[in-house]
Amino acid sequence: MTLSVAILGASGYTGAELVRLIATHPELRIAALTGDRKAGMSMGDVFPFLRHMSLPDLEKIEDVDFAKVDLCFCALPHATSQAVISALPRDLKIVDLSADFRLRDPAEYEKWYGKPHAALELQKEAVYGLTEFYRDDIREARLVAGTGCNAATGQYALRPLIEAGVIDLDDILIDLKAGVSGAGRSLKEPNLHAELSEGAHPYSAGGTHRHLGEFDQEFSRAAGRPVRVQFTPHLLPMNRGILANVYVKGDPQAVHRALAERYAAEPFLHVLPFGALPSTRHVRGSNYVHIGVIGDRIPGRAMVVAALDNLAKGSSGQAIQNANLMLGVEETAGLTLAPVFP
Amino acid sequence: MTLSVAILGASGYTGAELVRLIATHPELRIAALTGDRKAGMSMGDVFPFLRHMSLPDLEKIEDVDFAKVDLCFCALPHATSQAVISALPRDLKIVDLSADFRLRDPAEYEKWYGKPHAALELQKEAVYGLTEFYRDDIREARLVAGTGCNAATGQYALRPLIEAGVIDLDDILIDLKAGVSGAGRSLKEPNLHAELSEGAHPYSAGGTHRHLGEFDQEFSRAAGRPVRVQFTPHLLPMNRGILANVYVKGDPQAVHRALAERYAAEPFLHVLPFGALPSTRHVRGSNYVHIGVIGDRIPGRAMVVAALDNLAKGSSGQAIQNANLMLGVEETAGLTLAPVFP
Amino acid sequence: MTLSVAILGASGYTGAELVRLIATHPELRIAALTGDRKAGMSMGDVFPFLRHMSLPDLEKIEDVDFAKVDLCFCALPHATSQAVISALPRDLKIVDLSADFRLRDPAEYEKWYGKPHAALELQKEAVYGLTEFYRDDIREARLVAGTGCNAATGQYALRPLIEAGVIDLDDILIDLKAGVSGAGRSLKEPNLHAELSEGAHPYSAGGTHRHLGEFDQEFSRAAGRPVRVQFTPHLLPMNRGILANVYVKGDPQAVHRALAERYAAEPFLHVLPFGALPSTRHVRGSNYVHIGVIGDRIPGRAMVVAALDNLAKGSSGQAIQNANLMLGVEETAGLTLAPVFP
Amino acid sequence: MTLSVAILGASGYTGAELVRLIATHPELRIAALTGDRKAGMSMGDVFPFLRHMSLPDLEKIEDVDFAKVDLCFCALPHATSQAVISALPRDLKIVDLSADFRLRDPAEYEKWYGKPHAALELQKEAVYGLTEFYRDDIREARLVAGTGCNAATGQYALRPLIEAGVIDLDDILIDLKAGVSGAGRSLKEPNLHAELSEGAHPYSAGGTHRHLGEFDQEFSRAAGRPVRVQFTPHLLPMNRGILANVYVKGDPQAVHRALAERYAAEPFLHVLPFGALPSTRHVRGSNYVHIGVIGDRIPGRAMVVAALDNLAKGSSGQAIQNANLMLGVEETAGLTLAPVFP
Repeated sequence: MTLSVAILGASGYTGAELVRLIATHPELRIAALTGDRKAGMSMGDVFPFLRHMSLPDLEKIEDVDFAKVDLCFCALPHATSQAVISALPRDLKIVDLSADFRLRDPAEYEKWYGKPHAALELQKEAVYGLTEFYRDDIREARLVAGTGCNAATGQYALRPLIEAGVIDLDDILIDLKAGVSGAGRSLKEPNLHAELSEGAHPYSAGGTHRHLGEFDQEFSRAAGRPVRVQFTPHLLPMNRGILANVYVKGDPQAVHRALAERYAAEPFLHVLPFGALPSTRHVRGSNYVHIGVIGDRIPGRAMVVAALDNLAKGSSGQAIQNANLMLGVEETAGLTLAPVFP
Repeated sequence: MTLSVAILGASGYTGAELVRLIATHPELRIAALTGDRKAGMSMGDVFPFLRHMSLPDLEKIEDVDFAKVDLCFCALPHATSQAVISALPRDLKIVDLSADFRLRDPAEYEKWYGKPHAALELQKEAVYGLTEFYRDDIREARLVAGTGCNAATGQYALRPLIEAGVIDLDDILIDLKAGVSGAGRSLKEPNLHAELSEGAHPYSAGGTHRHLGEFDQEFSRAAGRPVRVQFTPHLLPMNRGILANVYVKGDPQAVHRALAERYAAEPFLHVLPFGALPSTRHVRGSNYVHIGVIGDRIPGRAMVVAALDNLAKGSSGQAIQNANLMLGVEETAGLTLAPVFP
Repeated sequence: MTLSVAILGASGYTGAELVRLIATHPELRIAALTGDRKAGMSMGDVFPFLRHMSLPDLEKIEDVDFAKVDLCFCALPHATSQAVISALPRDLKIVDLSADFRLRDPAEYEKWYGKPHAALELQKEAVYGLTEFYRDDIREARLVAGTGCNAATGQYALRPLIEAGVIDLDDILIDLKAGVSGAGRSLKEPNLHAELSEGAHPYSAGGTHRHLGEFDQEFSRAAGRPVRVQFTPHLLPMNRGILANVYVKGDPQAVHRALAERYAAEPFLHVLPFGALPSTRHVRGSNYVHIGVIGDRIPGRAMVVAALDNLAKGSSGQAIQNANLMLGVEETAGLTLAPVFP
Repeated sequence: MTLSVAILGASGYTGAELVRLIATHPELRIAALTGDRKAGMSMGDVFPFLRHMSLPDLEKIEDVDFAKVDLCFCALPHATSQAVISALPRDLKIVDLSADFRLRDPAEYEKWYGKPHAALELQKEAVYGLTEFYRDDIREARLVAGTGCNAATGQYALRPLIEAGVIDLDDILIDLKAGVSGAGRSLKEPNLHAELSEGAHPYSAGGTHRHLGEFDQEFSRAAGRPVRVQFTPHLLPMNRGILANVYVKGDPQAVHRALAERYAAEPFLHVLPFGALPSTRHVRGSNYVHIGVIGDRIPGRAMVVAALDNLAKGSSGQAIQNANLMLGVEETAGLTLAPVFP
């Protein structure tokens, strides 16, 4: 069975990562690629690392024949995504990688993204794309909202602990370190090599990062009561990778057990032996997540550290995993590439 | 058909890269992994990026049951390789990644490697592993000698020009830039992050780099007369990648044509349009080679630039390509992974 | 006035950093450099970046004429330092950069460093070298113990808050990010470029890092009661720099005010406007410390972020600042070099 | 004696580097800083690494009182520089860091920069700023044209060889490797961390790089006949540093001797012992140049390698060295900072 997919917004990093992963996917075929400003160009010109592949040229969204498409990945900026998806056929399966359909409450969307949501009906329909926690819903969904990459990392570390009731819900702190590709290919001064390399700094600190909206929604749902976490992301001089240190109050062994049990059957989530901690470089380029737990010298305190690749499991890999479910394909198809090290 | 392979010396970077590539190979299965000092350890402990794979633990070479092995990759240091392969069953197919069997002339081996060759019979038997130029021999070979990673890069740029007779054979200059993983996992001061990052320097300059032995042998054979090139490698602050700038005297268009024609049917070698030049980052983690040609403002001078990933096409990817031929498997099997960018 | 200094252990990074900083110091002159295994070599051969300087060759410690030395910097590994300093003239002024004399309580030393202290009399004599908090003692001291680089960073963020009583002493968490030069020039696998670049990971987590001994000693002294903090350091792909995020419970504005007031007259400590946060790249190569404070969306929680250069202010710059005080030289002499950016 | 300088275009990297170097200059004081789009901002807001300095805020050029300025550094983009300098007082001493006044022949300027020169009188007046070769002229000059950073590096390696007549003038090849800060703070895709790190590629190849105009002019003048070199620059994943490999035909020992003799009395140029080669990391952040020479195994061929810091000796350090000469200050004042390593 070969299924046809379209990728809207293929000229950005998450779009290119979708193409990279689909290159060795056994059942997906790329039928259309769009990139508004780069319409007419070949993908190999926009991303020379893909020049060996036979790919359709970039075209405008309005030129895509969606009748021939089984599923559409939408890798557009937020806000744009709402408008574009509103205009797509209503029976087309869609995995959206933007922030537009992640928050169920329109007021929360407006609070974090600064303007009212313009496609409320679609938002209601969307299923939150954290595969391991919404698998059954995703299988039935028409529209899946990919999670934020930071939001995914934090949730992998924390959701099982909240569900298992093994930590203090009022004292959760996430100190997160991220590579620069999460910021996309946009031309901003802090993303320049000369500004980023050989240094580190926090950004969107003080409870202002938009992925807090996802944390609030999902952790509160899991807990059955409001949960507010502290969250500070940092930009590191590396391209790929997110490392989330989650500091919790609870018994370290119980914390480890809750994670190990919850993820025992998950193909992509690996809980390390107690006391071992992960590194982003050991999941680079892959769909795998490594999670470690360690206790502190202060009794009753533990640290959970989760590592994943923001472009793969944090974004495009997750999107393909969800697409596999939606299309009735083996969930892990195309996603078992080993990490690239060194 | 599933074929069983063993990897001797799996605790180094080329060994780990073999495992990474075989992870998604449709027909190869890893039956044994060896690592003398690390025998008894799991591969996931030595290389945590491989912890998601089901792999045999590292063992000693003498504990491997070679009767169950269809082909053996030997990723040991040179000199060690000779000794180990001499003791292996004489009918076992072997792809050696060391320098031990690359040079046909024992005197040349001694000249470049500083001591006499200790396995002259095997050396005679070995086929030089530059796939695109020895494909038929490799298909029939029992023992294939993987090329040097720098040597491969330079040859991809130059051999077709020598064969086509379009350049001056007495004035060839290779200025090469390489990432640090080519030096392996060895603990040497220049390989430390603090010594290597944020800087660049030449090494083994002045006609002393051992891969010159391969250049001499192969270019002279291709030309039917002695050819001696100038060659300066540089160490760059990056992990993977080789960029070889080859400066030649000849008509730039003829140079481009010779390369484009020679590689037209090759699955992994891509000659860019005239005037376009490659980047190592566009082949990172893959088996692809990008080659570009540009003329100079001085008539009759051209520059050829070849880029490949030293651990993949320059070493372990090449080894698997050769193994595929030796085993009667599709030559490209397991090797069509797209590069990882960014 | 020109004063003569000796540097014991000049073949490591902190030794070389001392030389770099003294290169433009108006009153210090390097009279002797030692490096046991490299005795006889020129400093320019060990560190080519110093080849433009007129420096004495490396010699053995026993060959130094300490009668001609006004002050001795000791940049040796811990344990070695004790033994060496015990054998030096008892009236020689010494700034020790090792961990040997930082902990006043011999039991604490043994606990964190794994063996009994072998120079208890010297330990009693030593003054802890955090200049801004022990300035008067340092001025009078014969032996000053340089602080740990991580320990300095954490203390700059926290001591004024403890002294001012504006935070909860039982809930302090330090998540610290450090460059690799803090690990010295030692040949360890995690310090290799191929192992370190393009990734991040925690190390010595779970309350096991030795600098906790300094935190315990100094914070408890400042508070007048035992204080135990949580502390997790991370290794980042950069050479220089430490970023310490200190999460505290207290009024953010009061926290900012306590720091701003405490450091108002300090030449090297800069407290940023409330809400602004520092980056390690803005202090690279310099003796300056940048400190920022921000509140969280959760009332009563604040984050303090301190950034410094581990080799400069965290080690060799601090050592020179202390030496200046001990020698009666202007405290800032030789230390006003601007950071190097980019 | 304290002399006042203005820096026009202080919001770019070369402007900031001027400030960094002047920070510890014994005789220069910054009287004015301009940055058109950032006028009104403090320098510490534009470049937080300078926040510890007492500096005038950025202003518009028209608001500067040049009567109080002894010398003006002009760090503006080319073309802009012509216009701005044309409007400055005719008796004001100026060091221009742009490309505008480097080429004496207006036709050459138009050829390389694509439009006619708009300040021909000033161009005639300007002295080319390669200090070691135009020292006497610079001392008397009112307007000095800073060299290109690549152009300086190549000239340091080659000029003495041309002057001494020890190489074949018709077969000179420069393969150059440069860090990204030479491209300035401009927002271009190839300068992004995600596009630049972990890879290398040539740019402006094939005889098209503008610094060839300088090579042509200066080498031809030194030779007394037209000299055309081959020149290929590469962009490396590092911020600072240029490494120029110059391949020449001539006796290697004679080549080494010509360089060693020519630079014997130069304070910033260091010729390494024959066979030793430099690294950019050993001159980082400094005004020093390291030059090495090695022979090839092919008789009569040599490689000269020169390394410098593009922002320091290649641009702002050179500018201050020239300003020192023009102002009658000690030539090395403020420029003896040791390199920063690691």
